[in-house]
Amino acid sequence: MVYEAIAASGSSPYIWAYIITAFLSGLAFLYLSRIWDNVPRRFPIVHFFIVTWSGLMYLNFVEGQTLISDYAWYVDWMISTPLIVLALAMTATYKSEKNHYDLIAALMGLQFMLIVTGIISQEAAASTAYAFWIGCGLLAGVAYLLWVPFRKIAEETSDVLAKKYKLLAGYITVFFALYPAAWYLSEVVYPEGPAMLGAFETSLAFVILPFFCKQVYGFLDMYLIQKAGEEI
Amino acid sequence: MVYEAIAASGSSPYIWAYIITAFLSGLAFLYLSRIWDNVPRRFPIVHFFIVTWSGLMYLNFVEGQTLISDYAWYVDWMISTPLIVLALAMTATYKSEKNHYDLIAALMGLQFMLIVTGIISQEAAASTAYAFWIGCGLLAGVAYLLWVPFRKIAEETSDVLAKKYKLLAGYITVFFALYPAAWYLSEVVYPEGPAMLGAFETSLAFVILPFFCKQVYGFLDMYLIQKAGEEI
Amino acid sequence: MVYEAIAASGSSPYIWAYIITAFLSGLAFLYLSRIWDNVPRRFPIVHFFIVTWSGLMYLNFVEGQTLISDYAWYVDWMISTPLIVLALAMTATYKSEKNHYDLIAALMGLQFMLIVTGIISQEAAASTAYAFWIGCGLLAGVAYLLWVPFRKIAEETSDVLAKKYKLLAGYITVFFALYPAAWYLSEVVYPEGPAMLGAFETSLAFVILPFFCKQVYGFLDMYLIQKAGEEI
Repeated sequence: MVYEAIAASGSSPYIWAYIITAFLSGLAFLYLSRIWDNVPRRFPIVHFFIVTWSGLMYLNFVEGQTLISDYAWYVDWMISTPLIVLALAMTATYKSEKNHYDLIAALMGLQFMLIVTGIISQEAAASTAYAFWIGCGLLAGVAYLLWVPFRKIAEETSDVLAKKYKLLAGYITVFFALYPAAWYLSEVVYPEGPAMLGAFETSLAFVILPFFCKQVYGFLDMYLIQKAGEEI
Repeated sequence: MVYEAIAASGSSPYIWAYIITAFLSGLAFLYLSRIWDNVPRRFPIVHFFIVTWSGLMYLNFVEGQTLISDYAWYVDWMISTPLIVLALAMTATYKSEKNHYDLIAALMGLQFMLIVTGIISQEAAASTAYAFWIGCGLLAGVAYLLWVPFRKIAEETSDVLAKKYKLLAGYITVFFALYPAAWYLSEVVYPEGPAMLGAFETSLAFVILPFFCKQVYGFLDMYLIQKAGEEI
Repeated sequence: MVYEAIAASGSSPYIWAYIITAFLSGLAFLYLSRIWDNVPRRFPIVHFFIVTWSGLMYLNFVEGQTLISDYAWYVDWMISTPLIVLALAMTATYKSEKNHYDLIAALMGLQFMLIVTGIISQEAAASTAYAFWIGCGLLAGVAYLLWVPFRKIAEETSDVLAKKYKLLAGYITVFFALYPAAWYLSEVVYPEGPAMLGAFETSLAFVILPFFCKQVYGFLDMYLIQKAGEEI
C-alpha cells in the first residue's frame, strides 16, 4: 500500500535525484579519500556504504512493485542508520587509545532496534502506540550515548576534536528527531495519526531528511576529520 | 496461522507479563552495572539487548497481525539466542589473555543456523524432518563448543570461574534442549507431530522457557561474574 | 514462481547431491583441521559455514514450498558469498602483522550489496536493468579489492603466499563472473532476457557453480594454506 501511494504521487523525479546523488556521493567519498590522506580509510568506506545502500533501496520506489517496496525505507534505515551512528562513534574515538567496542555495539544495536519498532508500528494497524513509544525511548538512549559517553571520549582526546564531534552529533540528533516526527504525521505510514502529510509530502520528507543525514553528512564528517587531523 | 491460534488462545496476559518483565529487566541490568562495578560493561549491554529484543518481538503476538507475527519467535531467537551463547562465551573468556574470536563466531553462527532450521521446519509442511534433525545436530555442536573448548578456557583461568561457568552452561544447555522438545510437541508449529501442546500451552511454554533463559539468566550471569570478580 | 519451475524440472537428484556433498564437506573441513595443524582454526570454521549454510538453503528447493523458496539462492548467497571473499581476504592477510578490518568489511559489504541487487532485479519485473548493472559495478569493485589491495598485502608477506593467493583469487573471480552470466541467461529468474536456460539448466548451473565455489574451493584454500605454512 505504501508503494502504490508513493508511485502515484508524482515524487519519482525527486526519488531519482536522490538515487543519483547517492551514488555520485559514494564515488566522491572514495575520490576524496585519496586527496585527504589524513582521513583514515574507514571513514570513506562507511560513508560509501551509507549512501549507496540507501540509493539502492530507493530504487524499490521507482522500479515497479517489489517484495520490499512497502518496507524499503526500513530496509534502508536498518543498515544505513547504524552506520551513521558508527561514523559518529568513529569520529569521537578517532584518536582514542582504548577500544570502545562495547559502547559502539550498544549504540548500533539501539539504533537498529529503533528501526525495527518502526516496522512493527507500520504493520500493527490496531495499536501501534506501544512500538512507536518504545522506539522514541530507544532514540533517547541513542542520544544519551552520543552526548554523554562518546562526548567524554572526544573531550579526553582534544578540544579541537570535541568541538567538531559536538557539531556533528548535534546535526545528527536534530535530523534523527525529525524522522519520527515526519513518520508520525504521514498518512501513508501511519494513517491513524494526524495524517498531515500526504504521499507526495511523505516521500519528499524522506528524500530531504536522508539527503542531509547521508550525502551532506558524509562530506561534513570527512571534512571535519580532515581539519581535525591538520590541527591536532 | 500461528498468530491467530496464539491470539485466540487467551495467553495474552502471560505474554504481556513477559514483555513487561523483559523491559524492566533490561533497565535493571543497566542499573546493576553501576552498583556491581567489577562487572565489565559488555555484560549488561548484551543482556539488555537479549531481553529488550525478545520483549519487542513478543509485541507481535498481542498487537494485531503483523508481517512477522507467524515468525516472531524465530526473529526473536535469531538475535537473542546467539547473544545468549555470546554471554556464556564472554563469561568463559572473561579474564583470558588470548582472544577467541574464531570460537565465538563459530558458536554464534551455529546457534543462528539452528534457529533458521526451525523456520524451514515450520514452513515445509511436506517433510520437515530433515531441517529439524539438522537443527538437533547443530544444537549438539553448540553443546560441544560450550562443554569442551570454552570449559577448558574457563578452567585455564581459574577454578572459581570454571565452577561458575559450568553452572551457567549447564543451566543454558538444559533449557536449550527443552526448546526443540516444546517445538516438537506443539500442534501450532508442528501439526504433523504428536501435537500434545495446544496454542495456549505452546505460548505458555514459550513464555516460561525464555523467561528463565533471558531475564533470570541475565541476573544469574551478572551475579556470578560479580562474585567471581571478588574472589579471583 | 521460481520454486515451482525448479521443483517440476526434475533437478531434485542433483540438488540432493549438492546438499549431501555440502554437509559432508563441512564435516571434512573440521576433520582436516585436526590433521593439518598449521592451518589456523578460522579457516575450517569459515568454510564449514559456507557449505552448510548453502546446503541448508538448498533444502528449500526440494522440501516443499516455503516462505523463502523463491529467494533461497539469494538467502544462501547473502551469507555464503561474503564468507567466500572473507576466506580469500584471510588467505591474503594470513601472516600480515597489521589488521585490515576496514578493507575486509568493505569487501564483504560490497559482496553483500551485490547479492541484494540480484533480489531487486528478480522482483522488479518492469525494468530490472538498473539493479542488474549496479550489481555488475559492485562485482567490479569486489574484483578490484581482490586484485589490488589484497594482492599487495599477500605480496608483502611472501612470494609463496602471493602465488597461492593469486591462484585462489583468479579461481573465484572467474566463477563469480559466471554467476551473473547464468542469472542473465535464465528464463526462470530473468524471463525478459535472452531466456536461454530453462528451469532444469538454471538449477543445474546453480548446482555446478556453487559446488566449485564452495565445496571444492574450501578444500583448495585449506590445502594451499597448509602448503604455504610448510614453505614459509
